[in-house]
Amino acid sequence: MKKEVTTLKKLAQTLELSISTVSRALNDHPDISIDTKEKVKALALKLNYVPNIFAKGFRKHRSNIIGVIVPNITHYFTTTIVRGIVEEAESKGFRVIISESNNDIEKQKEMFNTMIQFGVDGILASLTKRTREVDHILATLNNIPIVLFDKVSNKIPCTQITINDEEAAYNIVEHLINIGKKRIAIIKESEYSYNSEKRYSGYLKALKEHDIALDPKMVISVEDISIKEGKRMTNILLSSKERPDAIFAITDGAAIGVIQTLNKFNVKIPEDIAVVGFSNSVYSTIIEPKLTTVDQPGEKIGRTAVKYLINEINLPEDNITNKLVEIKSNIVIRDSSFKS
Amino acid sequence: MKKEVTTLKKLAQTLELSISTVSRALNDHPDISIDTKEKVKALALKLNYVPNIFAKGFRKHRSNIIGVIVPNITHYFTTTIVRGIVEEAESKGFRVIISESNNDIEKQKEMFNTMIQFGVDGILASLTKRTREVDHILATLNNIPIVLFDKVSNKIPCTQITINDEEAAYNIVEHLINIGKKRIAIIKESEYSYNSEKRYSGYLKALKEHDIALDPKMVISVEDISIKEGKRMTNILLSSKERPDAIFAITDGAAIGVIQTLNKFNVKIPEDIAVVGFSNSVYSTIIEPKLTTVDQPGEKIGRTAVKYLINEINLPEDNITNKLVEIKSNIVIRDSSFKS
Repeated sequence: MKKEVTTLKKLAQTLELSISTVSRALNDHPDISIDTKEKVKALALKLNYVPNIFAKGFRKHRSNIIGVIVPNITHYFTTTIVRGIVEEAESKGFRVIISESNNDIEKQKEMFNTMIQFGVDGILASLTKRTREVDHILATLNNIPIVLFDKVSNKIPCTQITINDEEAAYNIVEHLINIGKKRIAIIKESEYSYNSEKRYSGYLKALKEHDIALDPKMVISVEDISIKEGKRMTNILLSSKERPDAIFAITDGAAIGVIQTLNKFNVKIPEDIAVVGFSNSVYSTIIEPKLTTVDQPGEKIGRTAVKYLINEINLPEDNITNKLVEIKSNIVIRDSSFKS
Repeated sequence: MKKEVTTLKKLAQTLELSISTVSRALNDHPDISIDTKEKVKALALKLNYVPNIFAKGFRKHRSNIIGVIVPNITHYFTTTIVRGIVEEAESKGFRVIISESNNDIEKQKEMFNTMIQFGVDGILASLTKRTREVDHILATLNNIPIVLFDKVSNKIPCTQITINDEEAAYNIVEHLINIGKKRIAIIKESEYSYNSEKRYSGYLKALKEHDIALDPKMVISVEDISIKEGKRMTNILLSSKERPDAIFAITDGAAIGVIQTLNKFNVKIPEDIAVVGFSNSVYSTIIEPKLTTVDQPGEKIGRTAVKYLINEINLPEDNITNKLVEIKSNIVIRDSSFKS
């Protein structure tokens, strides 16, 4: 579905007026009656009419503004990506405006439209958890370049920057196996989440390749993963008949909750239960014992996304080839899994 | 200085063309030559011409978008305010777009202009550290309502939402005095910073009212306050001939660095040296011992700012009276100063 761009002609036809009348109405020409002006302006707003000076046809006069749409702007990992985006964009003479979809597909739609109306030169987006319907993004892609990062979608033909979530999860679980752990629990998200699924699949792969049978009781799914949920789930795991000897929380936040609960019950970390997280947040070096985790290079993801986007902004449309870029992350081993 | 709004008339006069020609050029009318169109559009962009449909004159057709400008979007306390702003705004049917000034006055200027061009209904702003020249903000205030929060300025006649920084700092230093501390060091910012100055002045007041002489060696100023600087400054304080018996770091980040360094040298907290911070960040309950700090209600500040702004957006301009709103913060006493 191609998005129909609202033109002066469209407005004129709909209102049965001449193009010249519509144009003068929009520009408050004194010859046009107030009634007509209001009618024209109301329709222009309703149909998202974008005045031509800001529209694509006049692309060499750029706004030098990049729009960013993320699910949750206050999420720690997102702030590190945003830091990279802002710094890279500014070093290239671009300004950045940011909005959040709040993981709501309708808000996401609105923000894509709003960014177009603002005349941004391109959009960087990380998608809501359940972005199945992507028409609004495809429509935007007809107007300006989009680069997706972190939460991406293979339904959208554009450049995408991801992290090797699955491989990183595989590596960190393999590390637990290498230090002798056999009953490895995972705390993951229950709802469909791109990153959670990838990490879970890395966990499954590591168990399988090391001939460890999957125990479904060791797979804990929570709706909103957080420090609080990490605590609650650890209480449940501790009360189970066969305790785990390691816990892989797919976010650092949840891992902090795990450690705090184990500390509270004087469970020895890592001897009795080792703990690993994901994302190398600031928390991971503040908690005691310090947390083994996956270092997600947020700033680098942000910088890389900006580089590809600016490249596409500068290229003639036909020359754009979409790339799938995977940013490598490394595991950082600390006292929560291995005391040196 | 009143900001001059660029009108079609202004464009026409500058280019020595008729208003109708300019209007038609902007709307790509076929009767107008390509040369003229380019000339008109270039000037329109240069002078920040805002097409009338988005301009103030047509205020009843609102964009329902609130613009937010902050010094640093990835700063923890800022993210809590932004969370409050987004939630309150969305509950009232407004969308939010955010940009950062990166503590750069020129970028701040640009973002105020950009927000106006985007047609936002109002702006919420926290100012850069050294916002002395405020003409650009006064000019924006001629167009749409502005509410300032956190980092405010008494040079700008608009509603301002602040925290009782001075009082909170006074209270937390008095708490240290009440538990018997006498050599209380402060780690603050060296450059002019609204919040740092307020907190320092609360510190001075508490010492004075309790007849404790100020020792200049106990006043440590750093350029960029952070965990790292907290560590570095603690090393310096520990090597001084007369050690402090308490350290007040004016941010939780710096206080974390202080605690980590004291832990490293096995200094007993709070017996030998008590530590207090400011802002009640997540870190403060992850570090051991847990940090005594000031609970800054970020979300409440954000929500309050939105309420006042939307009220002003809905009022006729003449009915707006500027308010100074102080949000109360409380001290949270934990193990770093007092073990119960």
